[in-house]
Amino acid sequence: MNAHNIHSNPYNSPPASPKYSFVGTPAALPGIGTNDSQQRAQHTIGGEIKLIGAGPGDPDLLTMAAYKAITSWADIVLADKLVSKEILALVSCPLFIANKEKGCQASGQKELYERATLALQQGLRVVRLKQGDPFIFGRGGEEYLYFRRLGFEPTIVPGLSSSISGPLLANIPLTHRGIASQFLVCTGTGSQDTIPDTPTYVAHRTTVFLMALHRLESLVKDLKSAGYPDELPVAIVERASAHDQRCVKATVGTVVQVVKDAGYRPPGILIAGWACDALAQDPEQLDGLTNRADDL
Amino acid sequence: MNAHNIHSNPYNSPPASPKYSFVGTPAALPGIGTNDSQQRAQHTIGGEIKLIGAGPGDPDLLTMAAYKAITSWADIVLADKLVSKEILALVSCPLFIANKEKGCQASGQKELYERATLALQQGLRVVRLKQGDPFIFGRGGEEYLYFRRLGFEPTIVPGLSSSISGPLLANIPLTHRGIASQFLVCTGTGSQDTIPDTPTYVAHRTTVFLMALHRLESLVKDLKSAGYPDELPVAIVERASAHDQRCVKATVGTVVQVVKDAGYRPPGILIAGWACDALAQDPEQLDGLTNRADDL
Repeated sequence: MNAHNIHSNPYNSPPASPKYSFVGTPAALPGIGTNDSQQRAQHTIGGEIKLIGAGPGDPDLLTMAAYKAITSWADIVLADKLVSKEILALVSCPLFIANKEKGCQASGQKELYERATLALQQGLRVVRLKQGDPFIFGRGGEEYLYFRRLGFEPTIVPGLSSSISGPLLANIPLTHRGIASQFLVCTGTGSQDTIPDTPTYVAHRTTVFLMALHRLESLVKDLKSAGYPDELPVAIVERASAHDQRCVKATVGTVVQVVKDAGYRPPGILIAGWACDALAQDPEQLDGLTNRADDL
Repeated sequence: MNAHNIHSNPYNSPPASPKYSFVGTPAALPGIGTNDSQQRAQHTIGGEIKLIGAGPGDPDLLTMAAYKAITSWADIVLADKLVSKEILALVSCPLFIANKEKGCQASGQKELYERATLALQQGLRVVRLKQGDPFIFGRGGEEYLYFRRLGFEPTIVPGLSSSISGPLLANIPLTHRGIASQFLVCTGTGSQDTIPDTPTYVAHRTTVFLMALHRLESLVKDLKSAGYPDELPVAIVERASAHDQRCVKATVGTVVQVVKDAGYRPPGILIAGWACDALAQDPEQLDGLTNRADDL
């Protein structure tokens, strides 16, 4: 057994401050939500940075860790434009919102890196606040590597990804016994705007497509070619957790026309699979699904 | 356009209380974390129930909604045995922990249903607290249907699923540009303890196996048969977010021996995919991954 294969937790003392064991980050993970300067001095060389997921948008869906970090820990918060106004309103320190509009991604990211680096070199506590979960299509891994190379090992804090919470908030279980035993999350848009491979159709799988709705028509064509049946239920969940969240239900065969009629209000995700109808209001269907406590 | 295909938000007034639009749940979603009796009377017929995800275990990874619900909203909390002691310690009302040990699943679930139903009929606020996310292998959909059939439409509150947060807390991004553009979450154990189909190998996919480690040897055999290369990195994350979280790294070819040597401390998840090494401490590898801000 090679010793470097196992990464145990170096934070066993004091037990009152349990922390995760990150691979190769022995100096990371200072206490969340503390302003105690003594504890700070103990942990800090230069500044500290946390790369935090803000969840889908409703402040009630922030983690406690995220809430504490932006309301009482951070000296500066650097957020993406997608983070909701309601969450940004909680920030109690200087706030910088990256300008990553189409065409400005590179300069916006560069400015964000520069501001974060300056703050870290000044010994400040930096929160990099990202929509959803930092490691699910958030390119959090790349930012993590960037800051680590500068000598600042970020603490990564998960957030609710809309890939899971979006379906849930529209009452769609990605897994449901007898219907879906696995789920796949993929993007409808590859790097450099390429079209990624369409995943194989698997009957007992729910598939969530992110960044796919702008090319719905060609995606549906791809799905049909890949064997997704016309009658397979699909749902589009727009603006998950926001005031104006909306769920549009259709099938592979009807979704293009349904969206043409209903319009589309980004951002949204497309869910395809039999589980889309698992909790539908149909007494006959319910009888087949519920009250099977003998196997729970 | 059939009207029932679109579900807009009926909660636009007052704007101070934004709520999601659930399919077919016009009377659900009372305010989170309020004890205001007037607001309560307005929403309640009989009792109210929230089906809430507790996340992986660290109280800092609870959502604000979950924290408020168990500390100040609930009259009774019904939790699974898997929910961490640290989270249960936050509960400020009567707490019932379901006994769903092997062999007692049916009676444990029945007792939980009975207690919840009684509380609801007494007009109480019930929190059903589940490990992780309620709709990811939590059978939350079945409980949702059960309570809806009784006339009590549960509010569903997402939680961090260990399928995403586990890898993150071990510094493994499920998606990473140039390495993994999709991720699949599946179970290693089917219903009635059957072995599910092994998912096809896709090079740009990260696959997370839940409930698979007790049959690691046969799973690895299945993976090899399905074309997963021997050198594909795998990681096992045990007890994500707990004091004693541990991450064991290996490959498809070595993992059985590595786990034999290191031992296994449940619960844990198995992650397979090139992304397992995306953030590894290897300067040569890093050079290929970082600082590509021109495409961010």
